[in-house]
Amino acid sequence: SSSAHQIPKHFKSLIYSTHEVEDCTKVLSVKNYTPKQDLSQSIVLKTLAFPINPSDINQLQGVYPSRPEKTYDYSTDEPAAIAGNEGVFEVVSLPSGSSKGDLKLGDRVIPLQANQGTWSNYRVFSSSSDLIKVNDLDLFSAATVSVNGCTGFQLVSDYIDWNSNGNEWIIQNAGTSSVSKIVTQVAKAKGIKTLSVIRDRDNFDEVAKVLEDKYGATKVISESQNNDKTFAKEVLSKILGENARVRLALNSVGGKSSASIARKLENNALMLTYGGMSKQPVTLPTSLHIFKGLTSKGYWVTEKNKKNPQSKIDTISDFIKMYNYGHIISPRDEIETLTWNTNTTTDEQLLELVKKGITGKGKKKMVVLEW
Amino acid sequence: SSSAHQIPKHFKSLIYSTHEVEDCTKVLSVKNYTPKQDLSQSIVLKTLAFPINPSDINQLQGVYPSRPEKTYDYSTDEPAAIAGNEGVFEVVSLPSGSSKGDLKLGDRVIPLQANQGTWSNYRVFSSSSDLIKVNDLDLFSAATVSVNGCTGFQLVSDYIDWNSNGNEWIIQNAGTSSVSKIVTQVAKAKGIKTLSVIRDRDNFDEVAKVLEDKYGATKVISESQNNDKTFAKEVLSKILGENARVRLALNSVGGKSSASIARKLENNALMLTYGGMSKQPVTLPTSLHIFKGLTSKGYWVTEKNKKNPQSKIDTISDFIKMYNYGHIISPRDEIETLTWNTNTTTDEQLLELVKKGITGKGKKKMVVLEW
Repeated sequence: SSSAHQIPKHFKSLIYSTHEVEDCTKVLSVKNYTPKQDLSQSIVLKTLAFPINPSDINQLQGVYPSRPEKTYDYSTDEPAAIAGNEGVFEVVSLPSGSSKGDLKLGDRVIPLQANQGTWSNYRVFSSSSDLIKVNDLDLFSAATVSVNGCTGFQLVSDYIDWNSNGNEWIIQNAGTSSVSKIVTQVAKAKGIKTLSVIRDRDNFDEVAKVLEDKYGATKVISESQNNDKTFAKEVLSKILGENARVRLALNSVGGKSSASIARKLENNALMLTYGGMSKQPVTLPTSLHIFKGLTSKGYWVTEKNKKNPQSKIDTISDFIKMYNYGHIISPRDEIETLTWNTNTTTDEQLLELVKKGITGKGKKKMVVLEW
Repeated sequence: SSSAHQIPKHFKSLIYSTHEVEDCTKVLSVKNYTPKQDLSQSIVLKTLAFPINPSDINQLQGVYPSRPEKTYDYSTDEPAAIAGNEGVFEVVSLPSGSSKGDLKLGDRVIPLQANQGTWSNYRVFSSSSDLIKVNDLDLFSAATVSVNGCTGFQLVSDYIDWNSNGNEWIIQNAGTSSVSKIVTQVAKAKGIKTLSVIRDRDNFDEVAKVLEDKYGATKVISESQNNDKTFAKEVLSKILGENARVRLALNSVGGKSSASIARKLENNALMLTYGGMSKQPVTLPTSLHIFKGLTSKGYWVTEKNKKNPQSKIDTISDFIKMYNYGHIISPRDEIETLTWNTNTTTDEQLLELVKKGITGKGKKKMVVLEW
């Protein structure tokens, strides 16, 4: 049982002291060290799973503007930090004092903030206020709710005062991304319609059907259609229907795609940019700003929730409610797991596993710990 | 004297019923007509001068999103509108009732709103509330204060809560434009510093000196410098000085220039786009939106002051105060006048004059009426 969990004298973490843009896996190493904290007076967590996010990789490269402080806490010669910003943990030991809050052994928790270091077998926190309970979420939702979950949820919820009885729409590009799938599910639950733009592909109809049937997108169109002025004039209004209001554009592509989704907004609307997969800058026809009153802003989950931690707590709480109602499904089908067996995986194997997670193509990678 | 002014039975206006993008001068004609209003019950204005603005030309082309209603008021077979959105007038006749407000014969006035039609020898208004008195301004300032004056003044004044004791900056491109010169003068009067970007040119030093000495720009740099990362790293901070805050970017160029001025902003700052002289879209590196909290919006003087006419009245009032203090100088040196002698210029000559004003290159054109 959890209460009988044996906490080892040494913790094992993936750490880095330097950065390298070209091959960031070079800066990672597996380190075994004695935690500095008095574990009997701490909240001790064992790690269940952590995803490998683009922002984690950008941190290793040294190109991400949010970063952890490097310390000597891990018995290194140079100051080091534990990699990773997101993960789900289980409470395995609690202090006797009030700092444990309402945490119980066996609770599933996620860190409130980024930059805590999650690529580790154990982590220690001093106060329950630095953690959020996510017992109701499955492993995959819990391990991704801080970044993709919050991003998708807050993009829909935090910027527009929606009228769920109106014919109100969000348009977004990168419609197959994990965040976009959260967006469509949350929007549907709130009575907001979504027009998702995806890249042209041979199996367009098949992919569109999954996004519509499984993830609740109201309608999926291709980038060709998105960029086609005839489509905008003749087909779009039929898709949107009577008195439609396209109030919010969500951009994570940039370039022409960003201009084309912005063009479909009503007057005085908002485009939020939260990614730039095309590596092209956000491109906005001047007339949209001047004559259509477009506002273009950015969204950064890390900064937003650092400035306002309560907003993250509230978001996760609402997210969990939607998950419990079945409005948001687990992202398990979008994830490829890499298994770290804490009893049998050697340090060398662990490092290779994580490197594979960083460099591998295709589905999002998540390291799942077997205990 | 003004009170003895003879109002003719026929007015003369430059009107249009159709639009043409290629050569918009074709749609203009000079029309003599009997005004429909009872002039004894109206505010009658004689025109002193009107500028030929890009937006006036865009209206003739049919590509401007704000446009006057076309009517049969001018004895035409097809509905027609009088061209022009801006101009300065003299009150030559007043009604006896309260609709004249505090207007006096001889007052210099401008229309409160756009789309009134200003390319005319006389105009009639029913209420003083549709006019703003500008007696203190010279002809050139008065004739341009509605568009360039308001634009420059409001860009500086209406978006940022400036600390005039701080080292606070505006960066703007198109630094030689008429609006940019208003911006630098208003900013200087308010204790805000300006970094004006101008195109590279052989006589850069000479032009920069005029902008700095005559128009109050704090510092002028070239587009090459604006786009140069080494300049941004090594020279810019010396120009800006200690604890500088670059809080507002004003873009009327677009493309690379817009990206480069946006890059120089502090975090969570604002870029306002009010023009697009390069014909390139507004281009914003994704990271500025996501990681630096940049907000990009548009500014449109017509729409802003239509929505909130009091804001225009207040702006003009403040503008006049600055003009009276000598903080804002007349734009007369930037303007080429075209003379319409109301006694001797024939209709054919008038049409040619205005066509020349539309197609002519170089300085801004203003038609000045001789009475």
